[in-house]
Amino acid sequence: MFSRPRIPGAKPPRFQGFLRGIRRLWSSLKNTEVFVGSFALLIVLGTIGLKVLPGIYKEAPLGWTDAAFTATSAVCVTGLIVVDTATYFTFQGQLFLLLLIQLGGIGMMSLATLVIMALGGRPSLRSEAAATVINPGLSEITPRKLVLAVIRFTFAFESIGALLLYILWVPKMGWREAIWPAIFHSVSAFCNAGFSTYSDSLVQFSESPATLLVISCLIISGGLGFVVMEELIRYFQKPKHKRRTLSLHTKLVLWSTMLLIFVGASLFLLFEWNEGLNKLSVTDRIVNALFLSITPRTAGFNTVDYASMTTSTNFLTILLMTVGGAPGSTAGGFKVTSLAILVLLASSRLRARQSVTFAERSIPDETVQRAVGLLVVGGGIIVFGIFLLAGIGDLFGQHELFLVEAFEVVSAFNTVGLSMGATSHLSVQACWVVIFLMFIGRVGPLSLAAVLQVRFAQRGTFRYAHEDVIVG
Amino acid sequence: MFSRPRIPGAKPPRFQGFLRGIRRLWSSLKNTEVFVGSFALLIVLGTIGLKVLPGIYKEAPLGWTDAAFTATSAVCVTGLIVVDTATYFTFQGQLFLLLLIQLGGIGMMSLATLVIMALGGRPSLRSEAAATVINPGLSEITPRKLVLAVIRFTFAFESIGALLLYILWVPKMGWREAIWPAIFHSVSAFCNAGFSTYSDSLVQFSESPATLLVISCLIISGGLGFVVMEELIRYFQKPKHKRRTLSLHTKLVLWSTMLLIFVGASLFLLFEWNEGLNKLSVTDRIVNALFLSITPRTAGFNTVDYASMTTSTNFLTILLMTVGGAPGSTAGGFKVTSLAILVLLASSRLRARQSVTFAERSIPDETVQRAVGLLVVGGGIIVFGIFLLAGIGDLFGQHELFLVEAFEVVSAFNTVGLSMGATSHLSVQACWVVIFLMFIGRVGPLSLAAVLQVRFAQRGTFRYAHEDVIVG
Ligand SMILES: [K+]
Ligand SMILES: [K+]
Repeated sequence: MFSRPRIPGAKPPRFQGFLRGIRRLWSSLKNTEVFVGSFALLIVLGTIGLKVLPGIYKEAPLGWTDAAFTATSAVCVTGLIVVDTATYFTFQGQLFLLLLIQLGGIGMMSLATLVIMALGGRPSLRSEAAATVINPGLSEITPRKLVLAVIRFTFAFESIGALLLYILWVPKMGWREAIWPAIFHSVSAFCNAGFSTYSDSLVQFSESPATLLVISCLIISGGLGFVVMEELIRYFQKPKHKRRTLSLHTKLVLWSTMLLIFVGASLFLLFEWNEGLNKLSVTDRIVNALFLSITPRTAGFNTVDYASMTTSTNFLTILLMTVGGAPGSTAGGFKVTSLAILVLLASSRLRARQSVTFAERSIPDETVQRAVGLLVVGGGIIVFGIFLLAGIGDLFGQHELFLVEAFEVVSAFNTVGLSMGATSHLSVQACWVVIFLMFIGRVGPLSLAAVLQVRFAQRGTFRYAHEDVIVG
Repeated sequence: MFSRPRIPGAKPPRFQGFLRGIRRLWSSLKNTEVFVGSFALLIVLGTIGLKVLPGIYKEAPLGWTDAAFTATSAVCVTGLIVVDTATYFTFQGQLFLLLLIQLGGIGMMSLATLVIMALGGRPSLRSEAAATVINPGLSEITPRKLVLAVIRFTFAFESIGALLLYILWVPKMGWREAIWPAIFHSVSAFCNAGFSTYSDSLVQFSESPATLLVISCLIISGGLGFVVMEELIRYFQKPKHKRRTLSLHTKLVLWSTMLLIFVGASLFLLFEWNEGLNKLSVTDRIVNALFLSITPRTAGFNTVDYASMTTSTNFLTILLMTVGGAPGSTAGGFKVTSLAILVLLASSRLRARQSVTFAERSIPDETVQRAVGLLVVGGGIIVFGIFLLAGIGDLFGQHELFLVEAFEVVSAFNTVGLSMGATSHLSVQACWVVIFLMFIGRVGPLSLAAVLQVRFAQRGTFRYAHEDVIVG
């Protein structure tokens, strides 16, 4: 066998073969597999990093379970913590966490968008002449360009956010001390990660409305998703007379996000006006209620101690955590579009309409059924998770209140990161349940939707006879 | 004007006119309106009865709120109690309650079956040549015959049940003393009412497996619904070679009921083997676990103190309470068929099938969408109820655990009647919330389905263009 002369500095042939193998494996993978695989790989690398990197801890290094927990929480941008990010990690440690968060956030946005675009040519839509595809501007972009666009877009938002936070925090912290917290919180907020370099998260800022509003804007931007933000930017760049109407998806995301924020904030004001928020001024109460409504979907910064809030507040927080943000964003959850479709379905049945309609467009039946499928599967996983956590608690004598356990499971599965205080007491077994929930919550619903969708195209050619069943 | 000669004993003309008016009003009502109206009327009459009838209380007569609560709980066969049926009511009082329960149970079965039959000619089914109607044997029966059949059928089951309970209880209670409890518990069990003449409900029978099994059979029979039981009886009356296959509805009800009972019992055994059931023999543990699995759907007899059970048991009980029994039965809840359809929908999407299928039949899309609509509306009402109860509790300083409040709301809305102990502490405002939940839970989902169905027939002639939306 002829061997090429070895050039100094070039890779040895065996290594090149290895690279070729990797490249071949990569290109044979489906979008969904790439998506799930990248997150798994990133978590494994993050865990190893937390175990082997020097100088990242101020105290004793983390054990394997805690390292896996922390890496999963960072990569899945969940924000649940078993150790205090502020006091446990050195600057290098926090930098490594922020790297994992940033990679997790960008990976989520770009890969989820790729998976969404791969679903473009749906059978029911191809047969429909008048069908509009979701965001036509994106339909011919290559994966490479898409990832670059997501990165540009992310850094633009995070830079503006960091600058604003820096300006706000300089008077309090000083020129040098404000740099790192401003960067960290801007990235953490835009990625909906919810990690903080402060032990009390953002409780100290509960009377700094400007800070809360900047962070709220970052959370909302990250939670709208690339598809929506890209369309919005293109829309506003055009002169007014050239603007065409926004896509149905973007309209639905914007409307449901707005409604959720304002209805949520009003309810929190109602529940906590004379309770948890009673010591604040009226402006601060309103800003804090807004923040309480925005942070559970699914950023996870605290401005209050949830364990001391009313039951109604905690229950509403659980509901908002379950809803989450928009698809293809850094947010987790059941997604605002899925919720909107279910509500529209119920309301269209009440108004004698056969199809689910919004803004003078009807939503395909397949999409409606996928939303229902996600609800059933997601609900099943949450129920199973609560049983596991409660069962493990019973086994090891760590009885927690039901609300606390439900809060923890919902927070983990929807990658929120809020907690009523159970996270630091979890047993090793319970830790692994939560790790599993964070991972499946991050990649699960969307990749599941993709798998369902791919299978759907291979539809059978026969159909059983109809027979009806009575429902409730 | 010519007036007819008055015959002694005949009704005066004005009264006849009144009767004619009533009859005309009655015949102009739709099935759904009759259904909802009958329950409202029965509740009002029951409340007035509890206020004016003499000799029904051993202690001070009930106030209006408590009387309305008790009447609603009896007519809606819920079984939540603000006063102890055993010690508060005389024999006459218990007899009056049993009358309300019996009328509520028979009314539910017959009117719900009428509403179901009125939905027979669905547009999507009429166009389907191969469509089989639900229970063809019932398709030509008149309302009068149907009600009579339901009454015959109810009394047959209740008589057998009472006889068996009497035989079991004579050795312990004596010939005379066993009569009333046997009748009361048989009716209460078949009607899924859950009222008991014992202060501790059935806790004293937790080591009497025969009693628990008889009551379980009554609960299950009442919860299958008239349509299913009628078909089963006709099926087994025929000689073997003449039997045709059971309808899809009956198959689905039987399978899902069986699965729920056995999966539920296994989980309760797992949760309580070394906890709440640890003092019982192995046989008693199994029978009690079966009973724990059967009674929440939606009979509501206690054999245990739920406040002292594990969190997992209480959560599973909440889930089972939400599912309930079959449509057109004495049971409440979301209904086993609705749950089965949602699970089948999720699983059919996973198996690349376009339609929801079971037993080689496909279930019409309209039915699937109705189940989803019911889930969204029912879930919304439960969430709203929990907020109301928690809010009222906050207002009046009666803070209960979240699990206790959720348990109470789910129990009321699904007409179950189990409680973790909140019922007797409810404020007047909270009492009315629960009364409202019991009523809407009893008539709501089914009549709502009917209204949705009727509206559905008047479908519009235009349809908007399709445009897709991304879901999670
Ligand atoms: K988060
Ligand atoms: K009941």
